[in-house]
Amino acid sequence: MSELRRDPTTREWVIIASERAARPHSFRAPPRPRTTSREGCPFCPGRESETPPEVLVRPQNGPWRVRVVPNLYAALTPGGSTERRIVDGHFMTMDGVGAHEVVIETPDHEQPIGLMTKDEVFDILVVYQQRYLALKEDPSIRFVVIFKNHGPRAGTSLEHPHSQIVATPIAPPQVRRRFEIATEHYDARGRCVYCELVEWEQQAGRRVVMESDGFLVIHPYASRSPFETWIVPKAHLPCFASTKQEEFLQLATILGTTLRKIYHALGDPDFNYIVHTAPVEDEDNPYFHWHVQIVPRLTTVAGFEMGSGIYINTALPEETARFIRELPDD
Amino acid sequence: MSELRRDPTTREWVIIASERAARPHSFRAPPRPRTTSREGCPFCPGRESETPPEVLVRPQNGPWRVRVVPNLYAALTPGGSTERRIVDGHFMTMDGVGAHEVVIETPDHEQPIGLMTKDEVFDILVVYQQRYLALKEDPSIRFVVIFKNHGPRAGTSLEHPHSQIVATPIAPPQVRRRFEIATEHYDARGRCVYCELVEWEQQAGRRVVMESDGFLVIHPYASRSPFETWIVPKAHLPCFASTKQEEFLQLATILGTTLRKIYHALGDPDFNYIVHTAPVEDEDNPYFHWHVQIVPRLTTVAGFEMGSGIYINTALPEETARFIRELPDD
Repeated sequence: MSELRRDPTTREWVIIASERAARPHSFRAPPRPRTTSREGCPFCPGRESETPPEVLVRPQNGPWRVRVVPNLYAALTPGGSTERRIVDGHFMTMDGVGAHEVVIETPDHEQPIGLMTKDEVFDILVVYQQRYLALKEDPSIRFVVIFKNHGPRAGTSLEHPHSQIVATPIAPPQVRRRFEIATEHYDARGRCVYCELVEWEQQAGRRVVMESDGFLVIHPYASRSPFETWIVPKAHLPCFASTKQEEFLQLATILGTTLRKIYHALGDPDFNYIVHTAPVEDEDNPYFHWHVQIVPRLTTVAGFEMGSGIYINTALPEETARFIRELPDD
Repeated sequence: MSELRRDPTTREWVIIASERAARPHSFRAPPRPRTTSREGCPFCPGRESETPPEVLVRPQNGPWRVRVVPNLYAALTPGGSTERRIVDGHFMTMDGVGAHEVVIETPDHEQPIGLMTKDEVFDILVVYQQRYLALKEDPSIRFVVIFKNHGPRAGTSLEHPHSQIVATPIAPPQVRRRFEIATEHYDARGRCVYCELVEWEQQAGRRVVMESDGFLVIHPYASRSPFETWIVPKAHLPCFASTKQEEFLQLATILGTTLRKIYHALGDPDFNYIVHTAPVEDEDNPYFHWHVQIVPRLTTVAGFEMGSGIYINTALPEETARFIRELPDD
């Protein structure tokens, strides 16, 4: 018989289909067909003129290591009004105000983040922070989401390593709900739910993949899909961009090692990662706690998930966590 | 500049990226590779012994037209306890109690629902209703979701036309939220939000695809993806299974025609449909209103959607609705 598990941070249930649970090694992806080549790649050095002008480059002199440019196909753009308007008598609309940027993570077309050095990953994290801090200065911005799409099943056809930053003029309802649950937990228990989660997972131990002074890496209890991975800072901090440099150095190691292990274990799978952080106006409260979620795209969301919000996971987080934990770090 | 639109039934925002909006005809899918053949198909006539014994067959005598069998890889199964238990000190779990059934919609391996006769579609709808009514008799069942996955991008590798029914021992949080929004709307306006939506869309007209005495078919104002289609009954009714036979006859025509138009317009695209209905214990209140959502799987959910819950739709619902509306019915 399968098992229903409840995520304490979202209160969503998942089905762990343990009877048909696949062994961790069986999720290895088939080799990925090459979708683009260096030839036409607009993110490779020498083709800087094919992107919009950069908003940030690191370092400022000499050959670039990380570049940030507005997305040529931006979902949201600066300017416009945040006023809500009514159309067709009853429906609410507003301008697509915000920003949509691409972080070109490396000049090397074939260097996935999992195979970068610690310093290279650190550069990317610092760029995320700098752009977050710059974007939130726009008074129309309510929320900033930093994410990476790697591979076609994760929503990108561009091979060159890149991530994206979208600044939205609303705090999305999904983010509000996480926040409300964190607030209710705080009211009931007097502590942040993520701070408690770190302790609970440390005590249980069996879903821990890796740990450093400042971070815990887990396959969460109610993982929605196989090898879902959370990187949670141990210190309570609502906003990703408030992280100090020494923590980013640690995170660079932790993120790089985690992605490298996933790369080797699953054969460079398509994946997304998302930096979950507080809405801009809630950066300084004791409820929310930023963290990174990594989701290898090994399964397909289908009608059941769409109709119920309940995910079916065919892997046991305890088994996949052990599998990754026991792999060598390099 | 793009546009943000808010769905009045979920309060979720979507981005309509109208600047890069694709024209409706450009979403036509590439031809689908054949994934299975009649040869090994466990749902074809003559191989009834390869499925678990049927729980319903129609008609009861003679060659079957529709068969319902337990899913061989059931996510939830009858029996077990609905008691919540705590594991690892703090995490909530319960048995995977429920049911997971497959509706084999036709003996014909290559007969998609969009090309069936009205009577064939009617048979399927009546079977959905009969199984819903049977499953809810189990006191452990709180919610029943009826859905169809068509094609690999929609989560199935089995070609033979089939849909699925999952009965869950919880009312999922996502369903509760829709319900709460409908209840709040009812409290504020004294009417069901879906009843009002039908009138709003009839008045606006430009997102209407089709209409009959009892049903309205729309591409909703805040469509999350291109060609998302809702079939909404005009009469207020919380529970799908309370629908009367004459309405099912109408729905058979409406559903068949809608899927046939999508089949021809988009080249037999992968799609899901979901019957949204009230939780079992809320079947008789004035707030919720059952409806069908059809979602062609033309785009990929990526990091932005996962991190914000905001979908980016590159098609204008007004344009896709007109495109489908102007196609011939057959």
